[in-house]
Amino acid sequence: MSFKITILGSSGALPAYGRFPSSQLVEIQNRMFLVDCGEGTQIQMMKYQVNFHRISHIFISHLHGDHYLGLMGLLFTMHLQRRTNDLHIHSHWGLDDIITTHLQHSHGSLSFKIHFHGLEEGVIKTIVEDAVITVETIPLHHRVKCSGFLFREKPKPRRIDKDRLPEGLRMMQIANLKKGEDVLDDDGNVLYKNHDLTLPPRRSRSYAYCSDTGYNEDMVSQIKEVNMLYHEATFMAEEADKAEMTLHSTATQAAQIAALANVTTLLIGHFSARYRELEPVLNEAMKVFASTRLAVEGETFSIKD
Amino acid sequence: MSFKITILGSSGALPAYGRFPSSQLVEIQNRMFLVDCGEGTQIQMMKYQVNFHRISHIFISHLHGDHYLGLMGLLFTMHLQRRTNDLHIHSHWGLDDIITTHLQHSHGSLSFKIHFHGLEEGVIKTIVEDAVITVETIPLHHRVKCSGFLFREKPKPRRIDKDRLPEGLRMMQIANLKKGEDVLDDDGNVLYKNHDLTLPPRRSRSYAYCSDTGYNEDMVSQIKEVNMLYHEATFMAEEADKAEMTLHSTATQAAQIAALANVTTLLIGHFSARYRELEPVLNEAMKVFASTRLAVEGETFSIKD
Repeated sequence: MSFKITILGSSGALPAYGRFPSSQLVEIQNRMFLVDCGEGTQIQMMKYQVNFHRISHIFISHLHGDHYLGLMGLLFTMHLQRRTNDLHIHSHWGLDDIITTHLQHSHGSLSFKIHFHGLEEGVIKTIVEDAVITVETIPLHHRVKCSGFLFREKPKPRRIDKDRLPEGLRMMQIANLKKGEDVLDDDGNVLYKNHDLTLPPRRSRSYAYCSDTGYNEDMVSQIKEVNMLYHEATFMAEEADKAEMTLHSTATQAAQIAALANVTTLLIGHFSARYRELEPVLNEAMKVFASTRLAVEGETFSIKD
Repeated sequence: MSFKITILGSSGALPAYGRFPSSQLVEIQNRMFLVDCGEGTQIQMMKYQVNFHRISHIFISHLHGDHYLGLMGLLFTMHLQRRTNDLHIHSHWGLDDIITTHLQHSHGSLSFKIHFHGLEEGVIKTIVEDAVITVETIPLHHRVKCSGFLFREKPKPRRIDKDRLPEGLRMMQIANLKKGEDVLDDDGNVLYKNHDLTLPPRRSRSYAYCSDTGYNEDMVSQIKEVNMLYHEATFMAEEADKAEMTLHSTATQAAQIAALANVTTLLIGHFSARYRELEPVLNEAMKVFASTRLAVEGETFSIKD
């Protein structure tokens, strides 16, 4: 079952060198989520042939232009293409006002319904939950209200071990096995212990998105041992003062958070326009945390189950 | 002296095939104007290495997203790059409200002052005038309030014919020649007739931008014999019904307007996403008006003086 992140934009506030502002697609078991939506996101989605009508939820981390200015264009395009399924938008309050103002002065109304969900600042809260996944907010430290997002698969059932499954079991008995129960006979006696006929469940995968934020160890306990962490790395260490002043992070700091949280893989992005080449940024992070990758346009990172 | 138009976006409402939504740079004698500002305009300007701090006036034809959604990103970037010179924005009312709403919820204020000039619907009006040029509105027929823009150089002075200029003329006498006056002696008698020492003025060039609009012969008298006409050509003739219904034009109709107005060159753009290849659209227009060009991304069209 799929669990993958596709990078649509890797740029900081000033888009440069063909890099687009922040946007990522997160696809988990056929659910498609958009995380941040900088200017040009719909153009990037067309380039990478994303069927954006499958997006059910859009998560906007904060109201700086490079994280949300592509949203109206995307909504208008969904409208022109006659989307009918509901769309959920999760953002700090204010974006609802911006959307309403645009609609008021241009198209008037859309062909589909938007459910706007205002985020709370500074709290960990589950904002989406279904049978398979949860999404919770991650409090970030930035100049305006800002939240990251943590995507987790729920615990999965044990899997039937087909090699050891006896013939003649009834449907109900197999269903109980999947639930972790033993196989009973009609009198309620144990015929087979669950663990003798099943394999451990597949692991539940997780992805944490943290942009924009100053260095913030408070998040470590929440994102402990996620499979993949995206952490902004706007600057290199030589600009640590500027990072601190603007509440951004350096590549070293992103890697320090990854190391403290003992994640499997670190993705870095939100690169300042001062860096034409990104290899030095990557190398700086890898000195602290070897398993680091550049989250650049068009790259897809999969987490195997 | 320069008079040139650079195309930043050629797409209709749905950006496709790498085409960007409407935006053009108009440069006349070191004045730089931006006409429409679809999503991604700043990204295109960076690609084509446009120094956008030189832009003094931005003209927005109407409030459909593909003509204005790049504006906030451009304003934020100008702010981040610490622009200080004033910026004039000409648009139908509503965009002022949209800009204010964005500022209220994100950056708060900008590093430079915006002068917002609300357009009037359905009138020809001079909205910018200086010593060298005028810009006037062109009433267009679209589904919302919509104006085109007509850029004209003012009449130019006659030019001194250096080959025939006698030696010993004083500065004042030469200045009078340039103004079209004769050269007089101290007693007020004519020493040289103006036309004997001067050449005719260079021509005053003109550019009309007409997007979006249904077929509309009313504009012909206003744009008569302009050097260059940009006219939208969203559809081909086989979609004439759809053009009429949505108040857009076909390539044939754009060419008919160009022919009626006897312009020198027609540029067509605002292409529907249904046309991957544009040669057929161009060929359709050229059957009616031979001097037609595709206004596609990165092309610059100069008008010689």
